[in-house]
Amino acid sequence: MKKVSVQNYSMQSKLELKNGEILISPNIAYETWGNLNADLSNAILITTGLSPSSHAASNEHDSQKGWWEKLIGPNKAIDTNQFFVICANSLGSCFGSTGPSSINPKTNQPYKLLFPKLSIEDIASSLIRLTNHLGIKQLHTIVGPSMGGMTALSIVKQSPEIAKQMILISTSTSSRPFSIALRSLQRKMITSDPAWKNGDYDLADLPLEGMRLARFLGMVTYRSPEEWNQRFGRELIENIATNASLFDNTFQVEDYLHNRSDDFIKNFDPNSYLYLSRAIDLFDVMDESNSLPEEFKQTTLKKIKIIGVNSDYIFPFECQKELNEKFLLSGIESELIKLQSIQGHDSFLVDDLNFGKAIFKFLQ
Amino acid sequence: MKKVSVQNYSMQSKLELKNGEILISPNIAYETWGNLNADLSNAILITTGLSPSSHAASNEHDSQKGWWEKLIGPNKAIDTNQFFVICANSLGSCFGSTGPSSINPKTNQPYKLLFPKLSIEDIASSLIRLTNHLGIKQLHTIVGPSMGGMTALSIVKQSPEIAKQMILISTSTSSRPFSIALRSLQRKMITSDPAWKNGDYDLADLPLEGMRLARFLGMVTYRSPEEWNQRFGRELIENIATNASLFDNTFQVEDYLHNRSDDFIKNFDPNSYLYLSRAIDLFDVMDESNSLPEEFKQTTLKKIKIIGVNSDYIFPFECQKELNEKFLLSGIESELIKLQSIQGHDSFLVDDLNFGKAIFKFLQ
Repeated sequence: MKKVSVQNYSMQSKLELKNGEILISPNIAYETWGNLNADLSNAILITTGLSPSSHAASNEHDSQKGWWEKLIGPNKAIDTNQFFVICANSLGSCFGSTGPSSINPKTNQPYKLLFPKLSIEDIASSLIRLTNHLGIKQLHTIVGPSMGGMTALSIVKQSPEIAKQMILISTSTSSRPFSIALRSLQRKMITSDPAWKNGDYDLADLPLEGMRLARFLGMVTYRSPEEWNQRFGRELIENIATNASLFDNTFQVEDYLHNRSDDFIKNFDPNSYLYLSRAIDLFDVMDESNSLPEEFKQTTLKKIKIIGVNSDYIFPFECQKELNEKFLLSGIESELIKLQSIQGHDSFLVDDLNFGKAIFKFLQ
Repeated sequence: MKKVSVQNYSMQSKLELKNGEILISPNIAYETWGNLNADLSNAILITTGLSPSSHAASNEHDSQKGWWEKLIGPNKAIDTNQFFVICANSLGSCFGSTGPSSINPKTNQPYKLLFPKLSIEDIASSLIRLTNHLGIKQLHTIVGPSMGGMTALSIVKQSPEIAKQMILISTSTSSRPFSIALRSLQRKMITSDPAWKNGDYDLADLPLEGMRLARFLGMVTYRSPEEWNQRFGRELIENIATNASLFDNTFQVEDYLHNRSDDFIKNFDPNSYLYLSRAIDLFDVMDESNSLPEEFKQTTLKKIKIIGVNSDYIFPFECQKELNEKFLLSGIESELIKLQSIQGHDSFLVDDLNFGKAIFKFLQ
């Protein structure tokens, strides 16, 4: 029998959100790997992108591979012989942490669109609470890829002494209009699916068509044209049905992108997707002063590593360059690395060789 | 009263299509500018991208601006004092030429999905017929942007002596998988709109939501991230409704892309869009021999100019580079130019300064 590896931090008090609303006793689902040392100095917090659960890697309770399986474990880049690693499902998501599909204690029904406006700052503050709950005064390192990089920035901004180090991967101080436009379109694909029913969909009749379209767009734009060239070229699928229409999948690339999304769309709550997607658009770490040095003037962060990818056009390399320049202006030791990967924004999920090397080097 | 400038070439005989089916007496809607000279040597044929009508420029019969208004006219880059310019609505489209919304003579109903499988080669052969119909033995130049570049290639391949010169703009020998994937997704947006009704939609109840999503994706990807940065940055729209949901348009970029599509989606036949979009995917000018020199060994083309744009990722510059290299191997005088425009694939529609200069220089 599979043991459950997910732990739950059910807050005993309310969580006040950035927009002033509150969540009563929200839950944060998290997993850990390795052991916390005696002086509590070896904890690494991993903040996730939009879609992952807390299951970043397999462990003794759950042998299923995690979303960062190749990077987390004994003797891996994030070495669980050495570090106590924490990964939580983001607030607003749907894999155990409180989100739009959770029960609203006021109504005893799922929140759906009554879930308050969610911001990256709220995900961050819930993780600061979790860190305190685990008795950790200062994290060794926060590692934040993609949306998780924004969360990491917000954690340190809100709690300037919470970490000694930070690794920011394929992220930005704020989203640029091209990626806002793509996410806006993904949301419209979902909200224009009649099954979405203004967020009040039946769990037995999810807006799967809209979710499938949104995931297709995500997959095609999170990677790079060069990767699709190398993997599929203009190859046709085999066994095209004799009654196939001109518009049915014909090329391997369209078939892959259309059918690969099954797992995601059946497991990810559409409203969670909408809330998290919008939170990414709205985040701007410099929203108070328009100055990164000003926003981070109280931090005790010692060292930052910023990793970007040449082929990423969701958070293009210029975004990481900007982060590095502004942290250097803040007087923080910041190091920038540009990886040559063909997998675009998703490189951190698949190019474990390049990312593993860069992360390992920084942590040692 | 507005005079009608569109002329109709209604074929007196059937048109045999690439897939073996036939169209009985199809119509090609076209417009002309300037005068054909005595020795019939000054005709320029413009082959269009997916969406335009034949109305490339205003003229004495129709003062409405055309889609290439700034490039076609007296003393403009394509100088109508000097040239007789022809532009036709592509076969399969919906602005006068026969397409899925035309009446099927067999049923006296619109073809809809009974329209035969359309290929770029069919658009090309209908334009060869039109050229003959106009009494022109040899065109001075064919100018083909985007899908029109593929049409131009096919025209010369099918009728090797039909033109002295060719200008290919932001096009390719065949589509690459990234753009196939984007078009596949656009088609799915339309076909998954319940109002599409398997192609049998009511003209009073078009699949407008699907068309709007498809156009949004087109607009965001036909341009470049740099352009969206410069035009909109992270500016919010003014006057956000007090009852607006978190997912309503908030940023100017999403509002623009969502609302800018109105004209297009109300005027373009969804089935035409599907047929033309798929035809672009399927085209491969080297489909017979896998060799451009082999496919064009009989051509009497004297000179080719190939124009690409640095920021185009629908037909990236590598595609134009490949065309140039292969035409040079064919022993044809071919010249390649890379324009620095921030408007991506759509640059030829908006960057009239750069394009005007390049086209003018070649034609003189």
